[in-house]
Amino acid sequence: MTSLLLPEVKDALRSGDEKILAESVAALTQELLAADIADLLLTLEHDDAVKLFKALEPRKRVHAFEFLGLEEQEKLVENLGADTLGSVLDGMSSDDRADLFRYLPEAARERLYPMLAQAERNDVKRLLEFKEGTAGSVMSTEYATIRPDMTVSEALEHLRHVAPQRETIYVLFVVDDQRRLVGVVSLRELITAVTGSRVSSIMRREVISARATADREEVAALISKYDFLALPIVDENDVMLGIVTHDDVIDVIKAEATEDAQKVGGVEALELPYLETPVLTMVRKRGLWLVLLFVGQMFTANAMSHFENEIMVALVLALFVPMIISSGGNSGGQAASLIIRALAVGEVRISDWWRVVRREVITGLMLGGLLGVLGFVQVLVRAWFSPQEYRGHGMLVAATITVSLVVIVMWGSLAGSMLPILLKRLGLDPATSSTPFVATLCDVTGIVIYFAIAIFMLRGTLL
Amino acid sequence: MTSLLLPEVKDALRSGDEKILAESVAALTQELLAADIADLLLTLEHDDAVKLFKALEPRKRVHAFEFLGLEEQEKLVENLGADTLGSVLDGMSSDDRADLFRYLPEAARERLYPMLAQAERNDVKRLLEFKEGTAGSVMSTEYATIRPDMTVSEALEHLRHVAPQRETIYVLFVVDDQRRLVGVVSLRELITAVTGSRVSSIMRREVISARATADREEVAALISKYDFLALPIVDENDVMLGIVTHDDVIDVIKAEATEDAQKVGGVEALELPYLETPVLTMVRKRGLWLVLLFVGQMFTANAMSHFENEIMVALVLALFVPMIISSGGNSGGQAASLIIRALAVGEVRISDWWRVVRREVITGLMLGGLLGVLGFVQVLVRAWFSPQEYRGHGMLVAATITVSLVVIVMWGSLAGSMLPILLKRLGLDPATSSTPFVATLCDVTGIVIYFAIAIFMLRGTLL
Repeated sequence: MTSLLLPEVKDALRSGDEKILAESVAALTQELLAADIADLLLTLEHDDAVKLFKALEPRKRVHAFEFLGLEEQEKLVENLGADTLGSVLDGMSSDDRADLFRYLPEAARERLYPMLAQAERNDVKRLLEFKEGTAGSVMSTEYATIRPDMTVSEALEHLRHVAPQRETIYVLFVVDDQRRLVGVVSLRELITAVTGSRVSSIMRREVISARATADREEVAALISKYDFLALPIVDENDVMLGIVTHDDVIDVIKAEATEDAQKVGGVEALELPYLETPVLTMVRKRGLWLVLLFVGQMFTANAMSHFENEIMVALVLALFVPMIISSGGNSGGQAASLIIRALAVGEVRISDWWRVVRREVITGLMLGGLLGVLGFVQVLVRAWFSPQEYRGHGMLVAATITVSLVVIVMWGSLAGSMLPILLKRLGLDPATSSTPFVATLCDVTGIVIYFAIAIFMLRGTLL
Repeated sequence: MTSLLLPEVKDALRSGDEKILAESVAALTQELLAADIADLLLTLEHDDAVKLFKALEPRKRVHAFEFLGLEEQEKLVENLGADTLGSVLDGMSSDDRADLFRYLPEAARERLYPMLAQAERNDVKRLLEFKEGTAGSVMSTEYATIRPDMTVSEALEHLRHVAPQRETIYVLFVVDDQRRLVGVVSLRELITAVTGSRVSSIMRREVISARATADREEVAALISKYDFLALPIVDENDVMLGIVTHDDVIDVIKAEATEDAQKVGGVEALELPYLETPVLTMVRKRGLWLVLLFVGQMFTANAMSHFENEIMVALVLALFVPMIISSGGNSGGQAASLIIRALAVGEVRISDWWRVVRREVITGLMLGGLLGVLGFVQVLVRAWFSPQEYRGHGMLVAATITVSLVVIVMWGSLAGSMLPILLKRLGLDPATSSTPFVATLCDVTGIVIYFAIAIFMLRGTLL
C-alpha cells in the first residue's frame, strides 16, 4: 500500500509551498495507519522524510514516530526544530519516550530535556532510573486507574475523559488513596455490569503483578502465560508504578529468541541489529568465542599427536578423523539446540534431566547405529578399491569405524543434551552451551575415543 | 501460589462427598486465574485432576481447560462423561476447540461431535477445513460486529449483550448486510465518541485484514507490525470469517522461533514438545540430517586421501586438520546463525546481500588474522619442544597454518552468511542452512584449501 502512494507523496514534496504540502500530505495519509506512515518515512530520502514528517498532522506525527526504530528516531531528532520536537516528545507514550532517551547519548538527552513539559521531563527521568532489561525499563506510566468506591457509571464516565492519554483503557487498575493496587477490572466486565454497582463489588482482588526491578523476561512470561493485555508493575509497597502491555511482550519474546539464537551460534548477544552493529563490535563479540573454541581445538592436535605412532603405521586411520569426530559434534549440536529451546519455552525443566538422559542414550545409540552401518559399507568399498592402504584388514578397520561411530554419536547426544541443563542448574544461561562449543568438546574427546577403540581392536593386526 | 494451595486441595479431594468437594473447591479456586487452575491440574495425579476438574464451577472449568496443553486436554476428554464434556466443548473459544479437534484422532472426533450443540458442531467442521498453518486454522469465530448505521449508543448497548460470548469486544468490526467487512472501530473510540453519532462516521474504512488461506506467520507479522489486538480474517469477497487475536500471535512467534532453532541445529522441525515426541520420530527427524551430513563428511576422507603422500612425508600437517577446518566451520556457523535470525525478524533483506558480503569479508579477515596469530605462536612453541616433527621448518609450517586460518575463516564467514540469503532467494527456508551443514561444507573445502596452501608454501622444503 505504501509503495503505491510513493510517487504521489514525492510529487507533493516537490511543491515548495508548505501549506499545499500539508494539505496534500493530510489527504494522502488520512487512511494510513501509523506503522505504514513509518514505513513510508523509511523509504524516502532523509531530507524528504523530514519534510513529510513536519507536514503530518500532529497526532499522526507522534504515532508514526513511535513506530520508527531508535536509529531513525535519533536522525529525526537531530533535524527537527525545538517546537515540533517538543510536541512529539510530549505526545509519545511514556515507555517509547524513555527508550529513546535511554538510547541517546548524554549530550543529546540534556539538549532535549528543556523541550519537554515538566510532567514529561520528570516521567522520563524516573523511568531512566530503572536498569535496562528490568520491568521498570519497559513499562509505560500511562495506565487508567479507578477507585474502588466509584460506581460503574462513574468509572465509565471517568474513562471517557482519560481515554486519549492512556496506553490502554481495556484493563482498569483499582487503587486506594495511597495509589496502592487493590484490584483489577476489565472494561468488558465494567460494560456488562449493572451501572449502579460499585467497582469494589465487581473487581478481582487477587491481582497478578510484577516488581519494577523484575526481569523483563519474567514479565513477558507472565503476560504470555495468562494472555493478559497489560500487567501492572508495582513497588515494594504495592504502589502502582506502571504497566507493561501485550505488544511490548512480542518485542521481548523476539529479542530473547534472537539473543538465544546468537548465543547458540557461538556469538555473544548483539545489542543492535546485524547491519547496524559496527564491524569492530562484531569482531569482538565473535572473536572472543572463536578464540576460546580455537584454544579448545588446539587439544585436537595434542590428542592426535599422542597417536602419532599408530597413524604412522596405519595412515588410513587419520583419514577418518574429521568424519568421525564431526558426527559426534553434529549429534551433540542437535541435542543441544533441542534442549536449549525446550528449556527456553518451558517444555523441559531441570528436574526432567533423567528423562532426557534416557531419551538421548536410546536416540544416540540408534543414530550411531545408523551412521555405523553407513561407515562400515563405506570403508569396505574403499578397502576394495585400494587394498594396500588397509593391508588386508579392511573388515577390521570397518568394524573399528562402526564401533567408534556408535560410541561417539551416543556420547555426543548425551553431552549435548546435558550441558544446557547443567548450565541452567548452575544459574547460567543454557544458550551459552553453543553448538560450536559442543562440537569442540566432541572433537577432542572423539579423537581419544576413536584411537582408543582402534588400538584395542587392531592390536596385533593392523597396528 | 498454586503450590501453596496444593495441600488444601488434596485434603478436599480426599473427602468422598461430592457436594463438600464442590464447595471447598469453589472456595479454594475462587480467586485463582484460569491459567493457575490449569497449573494446579497438571501437578495433581490424573485421577485427582479429573475429580477436581469435575468439581469446578462450569465457567472456570471451560477457561482452565483452554489453558491446558493438547495432550492433557485429550487425557481429560477420555475421562469425562458426556454431560461435562459437552458443556466444556460448547463453552470453549472456537479456535481452541478447533485446535483440539484437529489434534484428536478421527475416532475420538466422531465420538465427540454428538455432544456438541448444532451451532458449535458446524463451527468446528468449518474451521477444520482450513489447512494447518493457515490463518483460518488459528482464527476464532467469536468476534463482535456492528452495523455502520447504528448510533454509538446502540452499538454500546449491543456490545453489552454479546460481550460474554465474544473473544474480544475491544475491536469492533463493521459489516454490511452481506457481512462484508467495511470498517473497524476500537471500543476506545466508541466510548469517547458523541453518543448520537453514527458508527459509519467514526469508523476507519481502510482495514488491514488477511485471507483465511494466508500463512499464520503472515498474520502474526501483521499483528506484531501494527500492534493490533485482533486482525480480521476474510474470504475472497471480503466477507468476515473470523479474527486472530494478540495472544495467538505470541504462540505463533514462539513456535516459529522454536522451528528455526531446531532447523539451525540440524533437526527437522518437531511437531510436538521435546519430551512428547516419540523416540522413533526423533530418530527420523535427526537421522535424516545426520545421514546427509555424514555422507558429506565422507568427502573429508576422500579429500585427505588425495594428500596421502604429503601427510606421509609431513605427518605433522595431519595433526592440525581438525583445528583448522573447525575454525572455518565455527566462523561460518556464527555468520549463518546471525543472518538466519536477522532474516527471520526482517533486519536483513535479500537485497542487502552485498552489504553483508562486505561486512563478512572484513570481519572474516580480522577474525582469521586473530586466530592466525594464535596458530602461529602455537606451532612455534610445539616446534620448539619437538623439532624432529618439523624437521627444522617450524617457522614455515607456522606460516602455512597462519595463512590457511586467515583464508579458511574468511571463506567460512562468507559461505555461512551467503547460504541463508541464497536459500531465501530460492524461496526456501533460510533456517535450513543449519550450522552443521555449514560446518560440513567448510570441513571438506577447508581440507583442500589447507593442503593446497601447504603444498605451495612448503614445496622444496618440508614437502
